[in-house]
Amino acid sequence: MARTQERLAGYRQRFDARFAAYFDELGERIGAPALSRFTPRCLELLRDQSLRGGKRLRVALLHEAARLATDEEDLPGLDAAALSIELLQTHGLVHDDIIDDAPVRRGGPSIYYAYREEFPGRERTALGLAVLAGDLAAFLSLQVLLDAEVPAELRQAMIGVQLGAASDAVVGQVIDLERDFCPLPDEELLHTVTEYKSARYSILAPLRLGLLAAGEDPAPYDERLRRYALLVGIYEQMRDDYLDLFGDESVTGKSAGTDIREGRRTYTVRALLTGTSGRERAMVESALGDRGCTGETIGRIRELAGERGIERSLRSDMRRYAEAASAEAAGWRPWWRAEPVAFFEALPLWSVDRTH
Amino acid sequence: MARTQERLAGYRQRFDARFAAYFDELGERIGAPALSRFTPRCLELLRDQSLRGGKRLRVALLHEAARLATDEEDLPGLDAAALSIELLQTHGLVHDDIIDDAPVRRGGPSIYYAYREEFPGRERTALGLAVLAGDLAAFLSLQVLLDAEVPAELRQAMIGVQLGAASDAVVGQVIDLERDFCPLPDEELLHTVTEYKSARYSILAPLRLGLLAAGEDPAPYDERLRRYALLVGIYEQMRDDYLDLFGDESVTGKSAGTDIREGRRTYTVRALLTGTSGRERAMVESALGDRGCTGETIGRIRELAGERGIERSLRSDMRRYAEAASAEAAGWRPWWRAEPVAFFEALPLWSVDRTH
Repeated sequence: MARTQERLAGYRQRFDARFAAYFDELGERIGAPALSRFTPRCLELLRDQSLRGGKRLRVALLHEAARLATDEEDLPGLDAAALSIELLQTHGLVHDDIIDDAPVRRGGPSIYYAYREEFPGRERTALGLAVLAGDLAAFLSLQVLLDAEVPAELRQAMIGVQLGAASDAVVGQVIDLERDFCPLPDEELLHTVTEYKSARYSILAPLRLGLLAAGEDPAPYDERLRRYALLVGIYEQMRDDYLDLFGDESVTGKSAGTDIREGRRTYTVRALLTGTSGRERAMVESALGDRGCTGETIGRIRELAGERGIERSLRSDMRRYAEAASAEAAGWRPWWRAEPVAFFEALPLWSVDRTH
Repeated sequence: MARTQERLAGYRQRFDARFAAYFDELGERIGAPALSRFTPRCLELLRDQSLRGGKRLRVALLHEAARLATDEEDLPGLDAAALSIELLQTHGLVHDDIIDDAPVRRGGPSIYYAYREEFPGRERTALGLAVLAGDLAAFLSLQVLLDAEVPAELRQAMIGVQLGAASDAVVGQVIDLERDFCPLPDEELLHTVTEYKSARYSILAPLRLGLLAAGEDPAPYDERLRRYALLVGIYEQMRDDYLDLFGDESVTGKSAGTDIREGRRTYTVRALLTGTSGRERAMVESALGDRGCTGETIGRIRELAGERGIERSLRSDMRRYAEAASAEAAGWRPWWRAEPVAFFEALPLWSVDRTH
């Protein structure tokens, strides 16, 4: 397990330095007119948010996927793929924060709110600049692949993976909004949202890109990769949803219960609705979508979730999906290199065990 | 001149049929989960707005640019390039209408306002779905190129053109917002905004894509193409700005004076500010950015522009840029085929002459 953490930290460190260097050169590459001050500011905000990145799980998945097929280090293509993955993530987060009206992202102001602060009383300008910043990140995410110094065939395959992932993520966001119109979405719907909104672009795409960079056609392994991606996607999403209510605010960096206040039909919210009845369920329902819901009410819902076994059941669901993901990876042994297979096997359990 | 109109109409007709067929197949290609109703609605709105297209000038430029270099018909690649160009345009318009808070687009509701009407009291959902619809159009615009059945090298060159155009257009939108913070932007700034916001993606990109599809490397001709694109971009932008104040509302389909009410520093607004003084200029300045400014005041400004020679001077500026564009195209004779050169020569004058 310590090994998992070390590997993640190593990838993160190397990538963060590379990402900073990318942004250092970006101003020149964009070729904006010299007279503009808004353009460099846009790039600066994209840089700040991008470099405030979290654990860079996507980057680790990419590199480990390449190692499944080869022990060669410094494969050309991995560098560009990592940048592309994280720039697409930046694109998604910038637009997400507009959609969710979210002031905070990764412990700093969201780009949308940074602009709102810079343009008091000009809400429309702030919104416009935030939309444009997100658009730019999307195009940059594909541009780095187009500029990658790799054979044309690999370049196109990588662009294909990222374009597909980008469209899937948009569809995922659309059905995520749709989900919140269901009073009580069933589990299948939640899994489908997770698959589109995060599993495909956050897990499956890095796996495919890593294999491609290693010279391996991912197509014959697609079913296997999809199964792993969906299982990891589900427990990661469950974990996010769990932490939103049960997480330590000093660790998560945001106030607990946001999903409840915003009326989001998450895994946790679904568990609260199905695991309560009578007056307790009525309390949960009246908190749902109530932006003014107090911290005290959120605290009572949390207590209730403890008493009714909802918290324990959520943790056991997470663990079940993580174990299934781990078992899926264990099945990869006959085809791929042992060390990276062990990484994919250990990752889900490590990830779930540190949920508190 | 009649020939120009005929050619444009021919391209438009063929393209519109092709664009409709593209959208007919899109639902299946996107592969959205069957349970979603929001995804097909998103595609439907993108389709409706895309097919309510205007004169399809970009598509005509693309085809005529190919004809500069070859008399071959039905070049592979042109079809995908045309779809890509118009899907990128759809992307830009959807996000534009969010930025400008515009209820109307091409004589129908903007996608943003269509969603607002469908989700009364849920402004955030409407905004989110409109942002996502625009994002999807951007990714689709690149996907059609990736799927084009042409040699890998051509495919990548075309993706490169469109990605560059897409980034330039974002920068153009950013500096367009920046422009409106200048009390009186100079002409150079306005030209720069025009170059980024429209000339590069609306004129230069179609020219480059057409030549590429015809097997001609556009790089050696780049300076020439850029000059033409900028001159056409300028008179087209001047024409849009002119029509916003002087256009016949029954033809333009929107109420006159929107740019003044929104405080946009357009070519026309700049001419009004530099061409008036004293109480007249004060009237223009107090109307600028006043969303409640009456039609009567707009009418008085229009009269004033007539009396002070501002309208005449705007028309003569337009004509001057159109003549320069035409002269630029005339200079292409030694290198390219006569008939399409004549098209590029005639287009600017035809376009300016029908401004009323």
